[in-house]
Amino acid sequence: MTKAQTSPAESAAGPLSGIKIVDLTRVLAGPYCTMALADLGARVIKVELPGRGDDARHIGPFIDKKSAYFMSVNRGKESIALNLKLEEDREIFEALLEDADVLVENYRPGTMEKLGYDWESLHARFPRLIYASASGFGQTGPYREKPAYDMVVQGMGGIMSLTGHPGGEPTRVGTSIGDIGAGLFTALGIVSALYERTRSGTAQGEGRRIDVSMLDCQIAMLENGIARYFATGKVPGPLGARHPSITPFQAFKAKDGYLTIAAGNDTLFTRLCELLGLPGLAGDARFTSNEARCQNVEALTAALEARLTGEPVSHWLALLGDAGIPCGPINNVEQALSDPQVLFRNMVVSTEDPDVGEVRMAGNPVKISGFADPAARAPAPELDSGRERLLAELKARKKAAE
Amino acid sequence: MTKAQTSPAESAAGPLSGIKIVDLTRVLAGPYCTMALADLGARVIKVELPGRGDDARHIGPFIDKKSAYFMSVNRGKESIALNLKLEEDREIFEALLEDADVLVENYRPGTMEKLGYDWESLHARFPRLIYASASGFGQTGPYREKPAYDMVVQGMGGIMSLTGHPGGEPTRVGTSIGDIGAGLFTALGIVSALYERTRSGTAQGEGRRIDVSMLDCQIAMLENGIARYFATGKVPGPLGARHPSITPFQAFKAKDGYLTIAAGNDTLFTRLCELLGLPGLAGDARFTSNEARCQNVEALTAALEARLTGEPVSHWLALLGDAGIPCGPINNVEQALSDPQVLFRNMVVSTEDPDVGEVRMAGNPVKISGFADPAARAPAPELDSGRERLLAELKARKKAAE
Repeated sequence: MTKAQTSPAESAAGPLSGIKIVDLTRVLAGPYCTMALADLGARVIKVELPGRGDDARHIGPFIDKKSAYFMSVNRGKESIALNLKLEEDREIFEALLEDADVLVENYRPGTMEKLGYDWESLHARFPRLIYASASGFGQTGPYREKPAYDMVVQGMGGIMSLTGHPGGEPTRVGTSIGDIGAGLFTALGIVSALYERTRSGTAQGEGRRIDVSMLDCQIAMLENGIARYFATGKVPGPLGARHPSITPFQAFKAKDGYLTIAAGNDTLFTRLCELLGLPGLAGDARFTSNEARCQNVEALTAALEARLTGEPVSHWLALLGDAGIPCGPINNVEQALSDPQVLFRNMVVSTEDPDVGEVRMAGNPVKISGFADPAARAPAPELDSGRERLLAELKARKKAAE
Repeated sequence: MTKAQTSPAESAAGPLSGIKIVDLTRVLAGPYCTMALADLGARVIKVELPGRGDDARHIGPFIDKKSAYFMSVNRGKESIALNLKLEEDREIFEALLEDADVLVENYRPGTMEKLGYDWESLHARFPRLIYASASGFGQTGPYREKPAYDMVVQGMGGIMSLTGHPGGEPTRVGTSIGDIGAGLFTALGIVSALYERTRSGTAQGEGRRIDVSMLDCQIAMLENGIARYFATGKVPGPLGARHPSITPFQAFKAKDGYLTIAAGNDTLFTRLCELLGLPGLAGDARFTSNEARCQNVEALTAALEARLTGEPVSHWLALLGDAGIPCGPINNVEQALSDPQVLFRNMVVSTEDPDVGEVRMAGNPVKISGFADPAARAPAPELDSGRERLLAELKARKKAAE
């Protein structure tokens, strides 16, 4: 089977161009992290299990038996299949680390130690190497060796207790925020360590060990749920589609569906009431401050919806939008991906997969001056498709060193 | 009123120690970004509107009239009140920029231009300065000047269409993921530009312009909702508390509440069935692969819950947990914040506010070797409390330059 290789030259140039990342990660948190780094210009070499590869290759949805899920978080990477329990493959892996800047892994804590690739050993051997781990619960603490996936940390971290409707059944955030949060914090730690390494006292700069836990990241993202709990001692619950401490800041029912309106400060609220032909509301003592509006949110919602349900969503978006009231539709995925602003911002990019043709996916939201933001990106790699080039590079390097 | 000043020396040391950030941001996306950077060691100087300060100072929950919301995303920063329309204050602001590494703002696009602080002007004057903007829709495109808040982009970006229960009412993610996502991507862009600046061709390195849109970030976080739509052409909807393409990976009802179980691969699923005393399920043709289980998720859920509802959550967590099945409770905020792992990992830190005493909040999830992760952090600043020290620093610098 002849497969097109992903060329590193095809990767987007960016502030991290020239950085080489050896990537042992699987499924989502780690691959999402390294995709963000690849989008910023880094070269990412995915080290996968021979035969099977990243588990995500076997998770749907599939296009012609290829995982669109895998393709969408691994674009622009290279792949080499190595069994880290075999001496021959370990040699290749260690040779890859020799001039790597970063090693990222998201195994369960303990796995890398068993392979002899713990931080202490690798740091002694490759002092410049930044070694980042993303795991369910972190490298320390009583749960260190427990397995976790997105669902588990969404449940444990409290976000599910804030999501959904009062008295309703448990509700997961509809995207894997447990993985994505950890992926982003891991990427932030890695780039910070790359920056720091340029100015360490030692000749070449020192690598650091980065330890990110999915559960920790859920806590870091709980935001005002924590403030509310510590300020009041009351345990906050889910609030449907409204903000806990800004009102109005929620979904409202119109004639043919819902829209969002976020007019929490007094100026915006007064303007909103005027536009809706309800000027009396702005002067109503129950609604004259954000605090008062939060306390009387049911009454306010009823009063606003009595008017809003009289006209369709499009009517209100035009009227309120023109007047500068923050508002918007509640888009489904199709509508979001065809939104003119989303398309203008190049947030839907495409790759050309050698088997299935064009595959579209989310673009890079970090827009930086001086770097192109190409609409066409390198596809996700076939398993082991980078082997020949990588081995040739290692050979050439060895020769040059002789 | 005598107030304790936040000393930059109290800030956590980290890979970004020595970096100076001038921070014009308000409310959440920007302040969340600069808090993450402060946690990594950067010095953050918050420039606020005289008199009123950051809007978040006026958003609840309050402790003794002080906003716990504000305190929880501004710890460890310094504050100076400047009116950028007054010549005298503009001089101070520009003097602050002279040796700043980063300027961050989250005004509506156009505001900085009107103040004469557009990228082109500032870059010409301060070529090393990295200039980052987080806005609702970005600095370009048809919606550029539209106002947006978290609620609006959660609605427009598609995440609400994936969150909640089939046929149910709109459901907001219970935390401000629109702001937090943008804050994290902005921080990632900033640190990448800091890294790149160390190796630019020019003598001192060049600053970059970073343009992050909250809506773009929502698209970047939609994850497999996009893959599913492009792979199948079908518009994905909300699925309650389960994963769209991994099964079982969801919340299950037990006798006294819910737990999560994430046992999507065949090995874990078979082990789960054995532990539940339902070995027949693993051999049932409807459930022999993840794909089959996804297609027959209702039948599988019913079969598992028939057993799970017989015992309380604690029973199952002990049984399944000991056997290495990824599972967990659905914690409320109080439970999450008192979880032994969360506490062990120092994810609840405290600050000593000069008025209200101890205020607890989320810690830093980026754990990096060689840097302390203090449990006590510097509090959020009083409005303008850094003025004297900052002006003294500027004076000393001017003197030294003479």
